[in-house]
Amino acid sequence: MSETKAPDASRRSERSRRAIFDAALALVSETGYAKTTIEGIAARAGVGKQTIYRWWPSKAAVLLDAFLDLAAQANEALGGDADSEIPDTGDLAADLRYVLRATVDEMNNPTFDAPTRALAAEGIVDPELGARFTEALLEPQLRYYVRRIEAAQAAGDVDPDVDPRIALELLVGPLHHRWIHRTLPLTHAYADALVDLALRGLAPRT
Amino acid sequence: MSETKAPDASRRSERSRRAIFDAALALVSETGYAKTTIEGIAARAGVGKQTIYRWWPSKAAVLLDAFLDLAAQANEALGGDADSEIPDTGDLAADLRYVLRATVDEMNNPTFDAPTRALAAEGIVDPELGARFTEALLEPQLRYYVRRIEAAQAAGDVDPDVDPRIALELLVGPLHHRWIHRTLPLTHAYADALVDLALRGLAPRT
Repeated sequence: MSETKAPDASRRSERSRRAIFDAALALVSETGYAKTTIEGIAARAGVGKQTIYRWWPSKAAVLLDAFLDLAAQANEALGGDADSEIPDTGDLAADLRYVLRATVDEMNNPTFDAPTRALAAEGIVDPELGARFTEALLEPQLRYYVRRIEAAQAAGDVDPDVDPRIALELLVGPLHHRWIHRTLPLTHAYADALVDLALRGLAPRT
Repeated sequence: MSETKAPDASRRSERSRRAIFDAALALVSETGYAKTTIEGIAARAGVGKQTIYRWWPSKAAVLLDAFLDLAAQANEALGGDADSEIPDTGDLAADLRYVLRATVDEMNNPTFDAPTRALAAEGIVDPELGARFTEALLEPQLRYYVRRIEAAQAAGDVDPDVDPRIALELLVGPLHHRWIHRTLPLTHAYADALVDLALRGLAPRT
């Protein structure tokens, strides 16, 4: 059932929603997922606990929405809209370099990095939470890669016998490995090198 | 200063050491890193707290040694010794398939999986712990790949202009991505497909 709200109430709701997301992301960054509570989020956001429970059934649900919102903001900052595909300019290497460089920038951005680490860490040890975040946050991003690689296969730029779901892991797997284990710096040059090596691996067999 | 021990005392020490490692790995698997304590490890291992403090300065130090010991055991189970290199039979693809399949088996083994996840999760949010585990556990494994790829470059099987440190990430990055995010099954067929695509990317330019 849809609800009609006076403009003021709707603005207040939006303000509360944003304050709750900001508080949730800040707390999980500062104290970790385990120690973040609905009470703590409410106190920091300056709203009543009941306001949070009215909109979300659990801490995990709040954080999931806060993350989806953060991802949408990051995407908008890149000039896309929240559901944008990977660009298809016809130059696969250029399109992938663009996306991987943007991912590197995100990973180097503390606003994004700290809460993402906290959630990734929790997802590693909590299979249920991990599955929810993988499904809601990670898989949609991976599907953009799948579609761009399928388009490249149709255009003759990628071996049609390669599984796009494995092909994309050659790009995102190494980035995540550096990010998670902090082995070596995440730079644009590294993003470019990955695209170069991966595309050589994916090229049509001659 | 070296210490000479009677054989009985030395056997007792080795038994205690192993009991402490087993207890530490079991606890971190069951309750996570944060809730694992020196007291808890001592109680479960049936030793005094002071026995642990005599040998290790901190919980992180016990766990690091327990992990190194686990890694050494896994390696021995593979028929290698703890410091073995990646085999060099002259067939790079076969050698990498062997190592990646063994890694997949390890990731699918609950004895290895649960404590590794617990530590990886903690390392993601705790930069100091993460750095210690990356340095002591991950980097030595990565150096085996670097040396095998360098040998392949010398043999003309890999493009000499490729950075071996990036090349190896095409192999281990995707494996870790599937393991950490539990996106899709980790199988021998997947390991083989990765080796195939990565080696096509790394082949000498013709």
